[in-house]
Amino acid sequence: MPYIFISTQIRLECGPTICGDEYSDPELMEFLGAKLTKQLGNNFREYSTADVPRLVLNKLEEKGYKVVGVTGLGQTMVWTLFKPAQ
Amino acid sequence: MPYIFISTQIRLECGPTICGDEYSDPELMEFLGAKLTKQLGNNFREYSTADVPRLVLNKLEEKGYKVVGVTGLGQTMVWTLFKPAQ
Amino acid sequence: MPYIFISTQIRLECGPTICGDEYSDPELMEFLGAKLTKQLGNNFREYSTADVPRLVLNKLEEKGYKVVGVTGLGQTMVWTLFKPAQ
Amino acid sequence: MPYIFISTQIRLECGPTICGDEYSDPELMEFLGAKLTKQLGNNFREYSTADVPRLVLNKLEEKGYKVVGVTGLGQTMVWTLFKPAQ
Amino acid sequence: MPYIFISTQIRLECGPTICGDEYSDPELMEFLGAKLTKQLGNNFREYSTADVPRLVLNKLEEKGYKVVGVTGLGQTMVWTLFKPAQ
Repeated sequence: MPYIFISTQIRLECGPTICGDEYSDPELMEFLGAKLTKQLGNNFREYSTADVPRLVLNKLEEKGYKVVGVTGLGQTMVWTLFKPAQ
Repeated sequence: MPYIFISTQIRLECGPTICGDEYSDPELMEFLGAKLTKQLGNNFREYSTADVPRLVLNKLEEKGYKVVGVTGLGQTMVWTLFKPAQ
Repeated sequence: MPYIFISTQIRLECGPTICGDEYSDPELMEFLGAKLTKQLGNNFREYSTADVPRLVLNKLEEKGYKVVGVTGLGQTMVWTLFKPAQ
Repeated sequence: MPYIFISTQIRLECGPTICGDEYSDPELMEFLGAKLTKQLGNNFREYSTADVPRLVLNKLEEKGYKVVGVTGLGQTMVWTLFKPAQ
Repeated sequence: MPYIFISTQIRLECGPTICGDEYSDPELMEFLGAKLTKQLGNNFREYSTADVPRLVLNKLEEKGYKVVGVTGLGQTMVWTLFKPAQ
């Protein structure tokens, strides 16, 4: 599973940070301190952590993930990361 | 056909994911599990799958496609992928 | 002229695609099948083709252009391409 | 001063193009044909040229600047360029 | 701490520039001339400098940080920088 998306809303300087969807690698999510949650009104679940996104990127960098794209989607900031095969 | 666009609306953690236009490679679209559909009010057709976009990117990575750009367009998130000539 | 911009509005799966401004290389524009047009209310002209943007990128790739950036600008999707000196 | 930002508003196919802030390299700004201007209501000055952004990028490429990021900010299109140390 | 985010609002040609969250490296923030501030209505603090973002990027380049992604998030322009391990 080489791709992962990290996202946060409105501001970069505070959490929470969304780290994954319900099919994400549970081991990696636990390493990031992210819990599987379901927000009111959503029909899907997502992994969320209270960390600021900068700390999440730094943790993922230790695991070999690199940022390949960054974008704003409405009020949500999204980083796309890729881990090259070793 | 080295370029492909993957897009999803509003949220990253759920599908559907749009994988192609009506001129896309049918074999690749079948590999992604995408069906050619026509949405109400559109005068063009598009390939769509129920998978989350992260899984689609992971499948395309197996075929040699790499993300070269990511952006938000209104409420739509778009990944541009490129497959280098072998 | 190493840089070129490709843009399309609202949806990725249909044309038209804007390929150039009035100072663009006419030979390259003809290769893309783009015509110089002036839209109502604009005081400038632009090259436009009916092709979907994916096909335009594929054609430009044959000529040595590579995507260096992708972004959404309001409802317009823009690809910035660059052709390295040979 | 390895970084430079180029921006234009709403449309890619016409100028003016903003090339710098008031601390930008005057020699480089003159090479781009940009003048230091102050727009009504702004409390800062900026360098502006009538050229289309594509021509400005082509000129900067001659000086060794490369596009490292492109984005839309509201109705403004922004290119971030970087010149590697020689 | 290989990642850092730089952001500015609405216009590129003037400051202030946000350089960090409250967990950012204080030494690096002092090098950038950024102070830890708390804006009215926010429940988090952020590092802010009066410099234009271009100068902040130039300073960070001296420290080995490179731009890996640029995006607009609403009216905020965000640069994501990464410092490779030496």
